[in-house]
Amino acid sequence: MAAERLIVVGGDAAGMSAASQARRRRSEKDLEIIAFERSPHTSYSACGLPYLAGGIIESEESLVVRSPQEFREKQSIDARVRHEVLSIDLENRRVVVRDLQSGRDQDEPFDLLMVATGTEPIRPPIERIDAQGVFGLSTLQSGIELRRALDTWKPKRAVVVGGGYIGLETAEAMIQRNVSTTLVEADSQPMNSLDTDMGEHVADALRKAGVEVVLGEKVEGLEVSRGRVSSVVTSRRTLTADIVVLGLGTRPQVEPAATSGLRLGSTGAIWVDDHMRTSREGIWAAGDCAETMNRITSKTVNFHLGTIANKMGRVAGTNIGGGDVSFPGVVGTAITKFGDLEIARTGLSSKEAESEGLDFVATSTRSTNKAGYYPGSQRVHLKVLAERPGGRLLGAQIVGGQGAGKRIDVFATALWNRMNVEDMINMDLSYVPPLSSLWDPVLIAARNALDELG
Amino acid sequence: MAAERLIVVGGDAAGMSAASQARRRRSEKDLEIIAFERSPHTSYSACGLPYLAGGIIESEESLVVRSPQEFREKQSIDARVRHEVLSIDLENRRVVVRDLQSGRDQDEPFDLLMVATGTEPIRPPIERIDAQGVFGLSTLQSGIELRRALDTWKPKRAVVVGGGYIGLETAEAMIQRNVSTTLVEADSQPMNSLDTDMGEHVADALRKAGVEVVLGEKVEGLEVSRGRVSSVVTSRRTLTADIVVLGLGTRPQVEPAATSGLRLGSTGAIWVDDHMRTSREGIWAAGDCAETMNRITSKTVNFHLGTIANKMGRVAGTNIGGGDVSFPGVVGTAITKFGDLEIARTGLSSKEAESEGLDFVATSTRSTNKAGYYPGSQRVHLKVLAERPGGRLLGAQIVGGQGAGKRIDVFATALWNRMNVEDMINMDLSYVPPLSSLWDPVLIAARNALDELG
Repeated sequence: MAAERLIVVGGDAAGMSAASQARRRRSEKDLEIIAFERSPHTSYSACGLPYLAGGIIESEESLVVRSPQEFREKQSIDARVRHEVLSIDLENRRVVVRDLQSGRDQDEPFDLLMVATGTEPIRPPIERIDAQGVFGLSTLQSGIELRRALDTWKPKRAVVVGGGYIGLETAEAMIQRNVSTTLVEADSQPMNSLDTDMGEHVADALRKAGVEVVLGEKVEGLEVSRGRVSSVVTSRRTLTADIVVLGLGTRPQVEPAATSGLRLGSTGAIWVDDHMRTSREGIWAAGDCAETMNRITSKTVNFHLGTIANKMGRVAGTNIGGGDVSFPGVVGTAITKFGDLEIARTGLSSKEAESEGLDFVATSTRSTNKAGYYPGSQRVHLKVLAERPGGRLLGAQIVGGQGAGKRIDVFATALWNRMNVEDMINMDLSYVPPLSSLWDPVLIAARNALDELG
Repeated sequence: MAAERLIVVGGDAAGMSAASQARRRRSEKDLEIIAFERSPHTSYSACGLPYLAGGIIESEESLVVRSPQEFREKQSIDARVRHEVLSIDLENRRVVVRDLQSGRDQDEPFDLLMVATGTEPIRPPIERIDAQGVFGLSTLQSGIELRRALDTWKPKRAVVVGGGYIGLETAEAMIQRNVSTTLVEADSQPMNSLDTDMGEHVADALRKAGVEVVLGEKVEGLEVSRGRVSSVVTSRRTLTADIVVLGLGTRPQVEPAATSGLRLGSTGAIWVDDHMRTSREGIWAAGDCAETMNRITSKTVNFHLGTIANKMGRVAGTNIGGGDVSFPGVVGTAITKFGDLEIARTGLSSKEAESEGLDFVATSTRSTNKAGYYPGSQRVHLKVLAERPGGRLLGAQIVGGQGAGKRIDVFATALWNRMNVEDMINMDLSYVPPLSSLWDPVLIAARNALDELG
């Protein structure tokens, strides 16, 4: 028997990163590691699900980074899928786990606990939401089911509910499968984490690709015919649909942590310090279910992104293994793609900067992804937010052609270093005509923001 | 008559950027601006020349950012092409200018002088270098001539001399025109501003594309048959060629500034301070002919890149116009592309770091440009140099598939901010499977360097 036992609640990005890092630093004899995962899969790429559904990625196995068997054989981590942790007893340091196949509950003691319960999809409180033909895209299982439905039913009309990242990527997947698609978004723009004008560029691209875009309408109900969904009813119209995909976002899955008495933060997610320690000694949390710090506002935030979950999990695992590292927080970077259009953001949007009470300029710039004269050069729209006065970079958004999106990382790095736009305008960025304009769009956008600051 | 007169020597990137900025701040009545340019063109994209030669860019006009006529009409800048400034008299503040068409010399007084004479191509001291069929690619005129030769002669065998940026881009152009091509490089690797292992990846790509790569051999002579070049003789072999392109790099064109008495710096280029002021009051210099500061070593350097020339020109022009801005220096970023392969560098290479006497690790990393499971995912090789101990980022190199190259800008931004690799590993970079691996290659490379630092 090992000296100590670590139980990991949730076997995906954060949980298994933590388990792996802990194992690297502590041997099997020193630390037994058991991970319980409710779904049938460990460590998979949730961001790959729309591409699996769309058929771009052929096999579901390719999305699995490491299977339970691999965890067992390569790292001596006992990963048990289809096991759900129902409750945590912090006092007696035990969890109750249900084996979802047999239905049996079991009591398991732990010395250390790692909470990585991730998220649960937001489902609108409407009737018949559980009807056949209504899908989500939150777990690998849900991706497999959507894929299977598309393959076998061959639906003709899809309604995608929600115009965020998952909504957009799902719409792209539907288009690729020649399913005629309507995207419904309650807000007045798709991608409402972007400023209005940037959201309009996204809406344009959706429409050009043949997606019907319905904005400012809430889904109020579903109609069912012969046991399967047949239409989506919004506040203003009824949309025929033989398949419906919900992409309404996610909320942190804080149970059973919250009930057990672990402190939640102001965002509603599990409170952790920069070492991923929760409010109770020896209990750690990381990933989508936990809070982190926004480096721009210095306030706690709760993001649901695989990149952040992996990083937080790594930090937790290193510390569980006896290390001493901290997670430096985030700046709010995200990216997606719709067809040829790349869409990215980092830092604060205008709405967010306003709600922080900041005085700022938000400057729009139009540029190109290659030298203007180079064949195939495509438009790039940028938006840069800078604080007034002083010019501290607050955020950036990019919507544009090939290669435009990843330029957000330059802004993210600039934000990471608290740069002013004035410090950015002469940065030594790379240029060759097939890959950039002479003044990289990032530099032009920073300069325009500086000009607007006056 | 205007209150003062500015003469600009050299009508390309730095010179015309300076002229434009000066004009923005000072009216026609206040400042007369005359620019003399030896070639027949102003403000063109020299970096576009290989693509013009290769036929990717159809018309030479598209490379001209602004013509003399446009300068005159839109900005009241008197840009005179085919005019060469032969000498500068600093004492009496006059220049002697030759009208290259009429052959007449003229004496022109100035109050302010902007020196932007750019570079001259390095030509090896071998016989018959001026033979028909031997081309360079330094001016728009030379690009037009090469293009015309390819169009009319339809050469079958090309030898490209030099394996740097221009050499690589020219080889690509030749391949695109179905000219069978040999690249000769005196060094043991192409792209010798990269580390050896990175250079090997480039050599591999050249060979795979069908380019014969001859390394470690100097060109010693040319053979001519019926008045036109027929072969290239290296230290070890004779290569048949009906067209030869020289891409041996450039040196700063410091005449007539040097003879006039303007101070040169240790690099051999014109000495300037961070405001682009030369050693004499009211005389400015910028661009390829002038020095700047390397922000990593804090030493003066002389780079020949359009991006830097434009930025320096802008700073000079703003100051000439009465502003007070400084140029913050460079980190040594450059990029190119050969076929699908993107090649980029920033900061110091291992050779450069060694010659600075630095103790450092140089860590190689292999990653992918998209999620590994995403179709079309391509390999990305990275190299990260970090100082020992402490881990200060010293440089980075990237050789890889689509989207790999521009990631150098993240390293450039990190260098700009004097980041340590440890500060980089958790940076909030963007991720979506079609555009990145979950841990962006930049983060993996930084982490590997940190691991190697121990």
